[in-house]
Amino acid sequence: MTRTADYARRYGFPQRVRVVEVGPRDGLQAEPEFIATTDKIAMIDRLASAGIREFEATSFVSPRAVPQLRDAAEVIAGVDRTRRVRLTTLVPNPRGAVAAAAARVDAMVVFLSASESHNRKNVNRSREQSLEGFREVVSIAREAGITVRGAIATAFGCPFEGEVDVAAITDIARAYAGMGITHVTLGDTTGMATPPLVVERCRALREAVPQTDIALHFHNTRGVGLVNVHAGLAEGITIFESSIGGLGGCPFAPGATGNIATEDLVYMLHECGVETGIDADAVADAAAWMEGVMGRKLPGQAAKAGPRLRRSAMDAVATACG
Amino acid sequence: MTRTADYARRYGFPQRVRVVEVGPRDGLQAEPEFIATTDKIAMIDRLASAGIREFEATSFVSPRAVPQLRDAAEVIAGVDRTRRVRLTTLVPNPRGAVAAAAARVDAMVVFLSASESHNRKNVNRSREQSLEGFREVVSIAREAGITVRGAIATAFGCPFEGEVDVAAITDIARAYAGMGITHVTLGDTTGMATPPLVVERCRALREAVPQTDIALHFHNTRGVGLVNVHAGLAEGITIFESSIGGLGGCPFAPGATGNIATEDLVYMLHECGVETGIDADAVADAAAWMEGVMGRKLPGQAAKAGPRLRRSAMDAVATACG
Repeated sequence: MTRTADYARRYGFPQRVRVVEVGPRDGLQAEPEFIATTDKIAMIDRLASAGIREFEATSFVSPRAVPQLRDAAEVIAGVDRTRRVRLTTLVPNPRGAVAAAAARVDAMVVFLSASESHNRKNVNRSREQSLEGFREVVSIAREAGITVRGAIATAFGCPFEGEVDVAAITDIARAYAGMGITHVTLGDTTGMATPPLVVERCRALREAVPQTDIALHFHNTRGVGLVNVHAGLAEGITIFESSIGGLGGCPFAPGATGNIATEDLVYMLHECGVETGIDADAVADAAAWMEGVMGRKLPGQAAKAGPRLRRSAMDAVATACG
Repeated sequence: MTRTADYARRYGFPQRVRVVEVGPRDGLQAEPEFIATTDKIAMIDRLASAGIREFEATSFVSPRAVPQLRDAAEVIAGVDRTRRVRLTTLVPNPRGAVAAAAARVDAMVVFLSASESHNRKNVNRSREQSLEGFREVVSIAREAGITVRGAIATAFGCPFEGEVDVAAITDIARAYAGMGITHVTLGDTTGMATPPLVVERCRALREAVPQTDIALHFHNTRGVGLVNVHAGLAEGITIFESSIGGLGGCPFAPGATGNIATEDLVYMLHECGVETGIDADAVADAAAWMEGVMGRKLPGQAAKAGPRLRRSAMDAVATACG
C-alpha cells in the first residue's frame, strides 16, 4: 500500500474519478475578446491528448447573449472525435437543443439556479418556468438519442439571497429525476461552498435521488476550492468539473478567481491517491499554452511551479530560509 | 451541534488553533524595495487588532545578507505590546541572538534545512555545523529568559535533492529536543508538501519527540496549501503559519505563489469549525491594506472576494450561468 493510496483509503475516497473540463464553455464565455475557433478546438484536443475524456465544450445559446460562443457548431465539428471524448454542451432552450442535436453532441446540459432571484436575474424566469421549459429540451434530446444532464447554479449560496436552503437543491434534483435527468451538477457559482456545506448537500442529494450521479463544480473564489473537492471525495463523489488554468472569473467580485484550475485539481487528486487517467504534466503544459492563447497569466498554480520533483540547479537562485 | 462543528468533529480537528503571522519576516524578506519601518509596524499592529497574537516579526540577520530586515530592532521596539502579542524573530547566529535578546523579543527561531544540499546553499554549512552553532544561541536566549523555537526548512521535499526522507526530520527534531527546543516548525519551503506527506511527517514527529509542539508552514505553490492544512488539522496540529495576502514567493519558480494567505487560512478554519480568536473580516481588510502598501495584487483570495454572505445588488452585474 503506497502512502497516497493509504491516504485515499483512510478518507474513503473513490479509487478513480472523472474530471470534466469546462474551460471551453464556462472558462471562455465571459471573455470580451473573441477566441479563435481553432484555438477552442486546439484547447479540447490538447486536453484530450493529456487524457481528459469529458468536456463542457460550448453552449448552444443565442449569439447575441453570448457572442464568444457563436461558433458552437464549428467547435463541435472541429474536435478530433477519434479519441472518444464526450462533448457536452449547455442548452438554454429548445432552439439550442435542436442545434446541439444537429451538431451531434454527446450530452446536453440544462441549468437553473437554486436561488429564485439568481434564476430570474440569470435567465429572466422563475425556477418553475425554467423546469417547465426543460421538458421540451429533454424530448428533443431523447428523440436524438442524446443524454441530458442537469446543472444547479448557486447550489451553495446566492450572491443576492445569501444562504440557499438544501431543500431547494433536493427539490430541483427530484424534478430533474422526474423528467429522466439523472446526472446533476452542483455549481458553486460565486465561490460560497464550504466543506461542511458540501457534506450536507451531497448527503441530502444521495437520499433524495439515490439513482442520480452527482458532479461537483467548485470555484476557488475564497481559496478553498480544493478543500471542497477533498470534502466531496470523502463523500464518495466521482465527478468533478474544473477549468484549465482556472479560466473563468467570479461575476460578482472583480479580480476574484472563479473555477478551480484543472491542473491543480489533477495534481491534488494524484497526490491524494485518486486516479484520473490524466497526465498531470501534460495538463500543466496545456495550462501554460492556454496562458499564451489568452495573453495573460491565469490563476492556476501547478503549471507555474512545475512538477513537484523537478530539480533545480544548485546555482539557480540565491535562496533564503522559508 | 452546528454544521461546522460537526465537520470538525468528524475529522478529529482541534477545537481551536493558533495562527502565526509570518508576513513581516518571511513575506517581506525578499522584497527588493525597502518597506518603511512604520509600515512593518502598522502591519503587525493591524493584524494584532484583528486578533492575531503571534508574529514572526523580523530576523536579526546581517543587514548585508537581508537589507529589507535591517530595521529589525526598530520594528520590535515600535510594535504596540499592550495587546500582549508574541513577537518571534529569526536568529541565524549568536550575534543575532544577542541583538534579539537586547530587543526583548518573545522567542527566537533557529532554522536549518532537512536537506543537506539546501542547507549548504542557504547558510553555507552542513546540517551538523548548523546544529552545533545553535547551542550558543540557545545559551544566549536562556540567559535572557527567552524561548527558542526550531524551524526545519525543505521538510517536505528539496528543490535540489527531490524527496526528503522523513528520518531527516525526526533526527533534527531529536537534536532540537536535546538542546531544549520543543517547538518545531516544518517548513514547506518550495511547495512540495502533499496531504499524505503531512500525515506521515506529523506522525513520525509525534513518535520521535512526543513533548515537542509541532507547527506547520505551508506554501500554496502547487495550489494545495489549504488541503495540507486540512491534513494537518486531522492529525491534531494546532499551530499554523501563514502570511497576510500570501506575501512571499517561491524562490525556485518565478511567478509561483509562496506562503498560504492568512485571510484564506482563517476563512477556511472558521468555515471548517475550527476557532482562531481572529476576526476574519478584519484580516481580509488588512490584506487589502497590505496590497496598498506593496502597490500590487497579492495572491490571497478571501479579501478580493469579500465576506461569503455579503449580498450583491440585483443590478450589480450581468450574470451568466456558472
